[in-house]
Amino acid sequence: MQNVQEKWLIEGIEPLLEQGEREEIPARETIYYPGTPSTSVYFVEDGKVKLSYLDPSGKRITLALRATGELFGEMALVGEQRHRHHAEAMEDSVLIRIPRERMLHWVRSRPDVLYQLLQLFGLWIRDLEEIVEDLAFRDIQARLSRQLLRLSHEYGVKTKDGILISFRLTHRDLAEMIGSARENTTMALNRFAREGILAKRRYQIIIKDVDGLKEKCGPS
Amino acid sequence: MQNVQEKWLIEGIEPLLEQGEREEIPARETIYYPGTPSTSVYFVEDGKVKLSYLDPSGKRITLALRATGELFGEMALVGEQRHRHHAEAMEDSVLIRIPRERMLHWVRSRPDVLYQLLQLFGLWIRDLEEIVEDLAFRDIQARLSRQLLRLSHEYGVKTKDGILISFRLTHRDLAEMIGSARENTTMALNRFAREGILAKRRYQIIIKDVDGLKEKCGPS
Repeated sequence: MQNVQEKWLIEGIEPLLEQGEREEIPARETIYYPGTPSTSVYFVEDGKVKLSYLDPSGKRITLALRATGELFGEMALVGEQRHRHHAEAMEDSVLIRIPRERMLHWVRSRPDVLYQLLQLFGLWIRDLEEIVEDLAFRDIQARLSRQLLRLSHEYGVKTKDGILISFRLTHRDLAEMIGSARENTTMALNRFAREGILAKRRYQIIIKDVDGLKEKCGPS
Repeated sequence: MQNVQEKWLIEGIEPLLEQGEREEIPARETIYYPGTPSTSVYFVEDGKVKLSYLDPSGKRITLALRATGELFGEMALVGEQRHRHHAEAMEDSVLIRIPRERMLHWVRSRPDVLYQLLQLFGLWIRDLEEIVEDLAFRDIQARLSRQLLRLSHEYGVKTKDGILISFRLTHRDLAEMIGSARENTTMALNRFAREGILAKRRYQIIIKDVDGLKEKCGPS
């Protein structure tokens, strides 16, 4: 999508952020649960947040990560009464919380900011559509490959061994990102490791053969 | 979601529509394919349009229907270069096509319309999230029940036999709405018919027992 930034950033939002409340959230702590009243938008000043769905049986699917500078909880702006996601800090994080009404008041007289929000909602739509495509059409191997490519694109750091995904990532985290069982995800990771496509270390994944990984994605 | 209309309508859009081009599309004809340049937004003056994804093997998942008064192709407004959906007329339809630049020019000086667009994008996000939840967590029976309830909510007409879904609907249409094989969808429909939850006629479905159908949805 040309003209659209890939990150969840809004230019010119700083004066609004100065009116927000700063909150420190330790790693693995919940920011809100599904069903919690949706009354604020959150900006990540520092850290990383995971947004996921929980089903009543405890199964989880991760929908997105939001990192430093990005925002989440934006559905509060369009009338959402209760959060549908689970939001959890993936690492120690600092958030700025802006009450819905304050942010609405601020943006409604700023068409340029409203348009940027529309673009962010558009990004979210495109991401969700990719998740739908993956779940409807693709097997675990293809879903895992696509997810690893996305992570390496957003969080990859070049090292002498390959592209390191630069944060702590368990097999369960990955399984929840592709809507698969943990066991099947581990099997697919092991297969990729045997084939020399990636290397696994404790909580770390290094992609050694990007082209090999792209081939595993299947037709797009 | 309180405060949010459920339909894809924008108040005060009439002056813009007068600048658009009217196009008549016969039933089952394609409006655009995935990959077609995304240059316009479409308003349904009359009829019904189906938006779906196609995978390279020909499998399809239907994402949404847009009926009279509603709009589609809105991702053109946020930088989409090529359509990702397949848009097809489900019945003889009349569309009004507005070039992207003309609509952007018109809405950018109208914060209230921009905010309505943001609400529509929010609706779309919520719908897509429900599709993700269904695909990730629910079996075919629960997905079919949820889809039939949505259709009866949006297109249901009360008859003496129950709630008739008021347009031509094949088993394949339903299968593509829930991301399932046609055969499995027919099996689930037959089961619901045996249990007295619905009645099937040629291209028609009548829901006889809404509470029974709700029970089939599982926990939400």
